[in-house]
Amino acid sequence: MGGVDDLGTKRKTRSPMKKTNFPLSEVYRLLEPGPVVLLTTARAGRANVMPLSWHLMMEFTPPLVGCVVSNRNYSFASLKTSRECVINIPTVELAETVVACGNTSGRRVDKFKAFGLTPVRAASVKPPLIAECYANLECKVVDVKLVTKYNFFVLEVVQAWIDPARKNPRTIHHQGEGEFMVAARTLHLPSPKTSLAGK
Amino acid sequence: MGGVDDLGTKRKTRSPMKKTNFPLSEVYRLLEPGPVVLLTTARAGRANVMPLSWHLMMEFTPPLVGCVVSNRNYSFASLKTSRECVINIPTVELAETVVACGNTSGRRVDKFKAFGLTPVRAASVKPPLIAECYANLECKVVDVKLVTKYNFFVLEVVQAWIDPARKNPRTIHHQGEGEFMVAARTLHLPSPKTSLAGK
Repeated sequence: MGGVDDLGTKRKTRSPMKKTNFPLSEVYRLLEPGPVVLLTTARAGRANVMPLSWHLMMEFTPPLVGCVVSNRNYSFASLKTSRECVINIPTVELAETVVACGNTSGRRVDKFKAFGLTPVRAASVKPPLIAECYANLECKVVDVKLVTKYNFFVLEVVQAWIDPARKNPRTIHHQGEGEFMVAARTLHLPSPKTSLAGK
Repeated sequence: MGGVDDLGTKRKTRSPMKKTNFPLSEVYRLLEPGPVVLLTTARAGRANVMPLSWHLMMEFTPPLVGCVVSNRNYSFASLKTSRECVINIPTVELAETVVACGNTSGRRVDKFKAFGLTPVRAASVKPPLIAECYANLECKVVDVKLVTKYNFFVLEVVQAWIDPARKNPRTIHHQGEGEFMVAARTLHLPSPKTSLAGK
């Protein structure tokens, strides 16, 4: 009850508070528009978090996601060794925290403590979910063939969570050199599910 | 002068009208926010175009881009055989055209003619640039190791073009089932180039 485990994650519930299960077949709708995400990893009982914009959808079901995590990043070894991570999707309210996470290294800083992020225990993987993010995707590494050459990992999303109270989450989209585009109005056009997904 | 070659591309200039060379080291700024793009390919003297959202940046310089093009798409064989393509970045003004391109197949339709897109000869590859798009990236396939398993191609951008008159291009970002987020206001936060790029 209310304790913390060796990763500092809250033990009380096994799913993030107020969040509900999100169907795996719909995960592409969260990642396809290209939001900056916060990747959580864990190694030797210590969790870390880094921002990531270099990701893509690779398959609908099971949802596969590819991402590049540089071997210069502290998270690289955790991901390569533990083969688990969580993709947490922040909104514009967290923009400054996202940038702060990108400007520090987990080698020196406990970013959860430093930036007020709340780790919550995941259901299927060791790295924690971030409570403040509106959606969380628990992932396992399923292919490392391009890791040596490109730092490219293929992940399978094994469990997804969403905050049903957040109707219009305004994600942020990195444009380089400190510029972010903020998701705003949407447009509805008739389009079959597969037509714009590269399928 | 003013004729068309066997791909139907305009012969007059070798670069898209009104566009200027865009530095390759800055290409990540165009793709990292996750816009829907129009991929042009060419095979046997015939060009085709398809929308694509499943792409990611993989390296700054030379700029490498990964993308998934399904083997169910007409463009797949062109890309695999010719090993060349152009990534054209449309804005919201072309949204209906983008959807129309996704709802038809190049097997049956010349999409350039059907949807009023203007093919312009590229400098370094055979597939044409699309004049109506605000930026165009000429690409060569550099790695096909994950094509059989995931339809995943690694591309190198060898030449990039941008319309300098378009100051705030409003790209569109696919959210599935006919929903698109339209790029709107931007936010400036101090962030070193590499911190949010997954590097």
